[in-house]
Amino acid sequence: MTYCVGLLLKAGVVLLSDTRTNAGLDNIACYRKTFTFEVPGERVVTILTAGSLSVTQTAIARLRDMVDDPEADETTSILKARTMLDVAEIVGRVLSDVRADITAKLERMSQATASASLMVAGQRKGGEMRLFLVYPEGNFIEATEDTPFLQIGEHKYGKPILDRVVTPDTPLADAKKAVLLSMDSTLRSNLSVGMPLDLTVIETDACRVTESRRIEADDPTFREMSTAWSNALRHAFTEVVI
Amino acid sequence: MTYCVGLLLKAGVVLLSDTRTNAGLDNIACYRKTFTFEVPGERVVTILTAGSLSVTQTAIARLRDMVDDPEADETTSILKARTMLDVAEIVGRVLSDVRADITAKLERMSQATASASLMVAGQRKGGEMRLFLVYPEGNFIEATEDTPFLQIGEHKYGKPILDRVVTPDTPLADAKKAVLLSMDSTLRSNLSVGMPLDLTVIETDACRVTESRRIEADDPTFREMSTAWSNALRHAFTEVVI
Repeated sequence: MTYCVGLLLKAGVVLLSDTRTNAGLDNIACYRKTFTFEVPGERVVTILTAGSLSVTQTAIARLRDMVDDPEADETTSILKARTMLDVAEIVGRVLSDVRADITAKLERMSQATASASLMVAGQRKGGEMRLFLVYPEGNFIEATEDTPFLQIGEHKYGKPILDRVVTPDTPLADAKKAVLLSMDSTLRSNLSVGMPLDLTVIETDACRVTESRRIEADDPTFREMSTAWSNALRHAFTEVVI
Repeated sequence: MTYCVGLLLKAGVVLLSDTRTNAGLDNIACYRKTFTFEVPGERVVTILTAGSLSVTQTAIARLRDMVDDPEADETTSILKARTMLDVAEIVGRVLSDVRADITAKLERMSQATASASLMVAGQRKGGEMRLFLVYPEGNFIEATEDTPFLQIGEHKYGKPILDRVVTPDTPLADAKKAVLLSMDSTLRSNLSVGMPLDLTVIETDACRVTESRRIEADDPTFREMSTAWSNALRHAFTEVVI
């Protein structure tokens, strides 16, 4: 499993992913799920992935090949696409193609299917910051003022805290805390979501990643935050009267 | 959907269920999901239901018929069974039979299947208080000191708070608060879980329901608790430092 969350705020985009992949409970590995494509100052696109590793790795590799292709143009390279909407279109098309290719292979041998979802965040110079969730079929939805966050993977455990504290006006420091606490609840409840974590911040109009941090399992700040949150929740529980 | 939660504490059992059933999003109704069978002072058995309404209603109706049958004995009546384990066995057998009957009907016409899970709590005089989760197949698991709560239906949103505050030593007042807050998080996130709620408390060795309360949508105490919890969570969020 996986948990990835993205917030679209006036101050920027905050993204967090875990790194655990598993094929059954007895085959667990660590893979990065956050991928950034950027021309600093001009354009930044960060993609978070959830789903079958063969699909997500192939999709990211194809997107990279399409960027590196000397004949790349605005219809094929997410670093040349005219708008973030066009970036989402390209990503959706690649995801859909990769799924179709891999499913065709799987169906020759078994009833198995392979699927994945992607989150796409970014901004090009002169455009707006945008955040999309690309479905396995290649269609997508976008975060808005009313619903300023998107999640892929194991989304339920970490949603209540986001519902309560995230608005478009949330400052970046609070936003980082919100995604880390949302992840903390998920880590506690689903073993197939695991440390380390990748935190990415893209400040509005910077057009580059302004903070990129890997948080390891023994990170003292994360541990303290996790303990403080447990204590604060227990204290809040005692304060509420019925 | 449904959310039912049960806590097995030294002080007793605390059970909470919602009442919403739906066939699609455009066909929503209110049905009780908590059913009590008791001989006050001798034995109490409370069953919470989740799943297809045709299965849960038929299973409860059959259990009631089996109790009312003049020839009922310890192998058929949950009010005569020798132990709570035997009660769980009878409930599991009935659930499995009902599912098989209804699935046979469905399969004549369509690919549809019908399923349900049940929670069974209770005590007989001279025995221990016990809490079981009966799976759709009729097998079951039991709450223990290590895991003193069970959930059926939409269980994820309401689990983090239970993980943090419930132990076998939790007093009944805190336990009621915990299940109501767990339900509150679920109600906020899943439209197919809805008010009113049915709260049932069975104090240890009372062998009868000691509190049974329907909490309506406009219940002022529940609303105040919900608001206070939101405020306490937001306050806790501001207190935590990263």
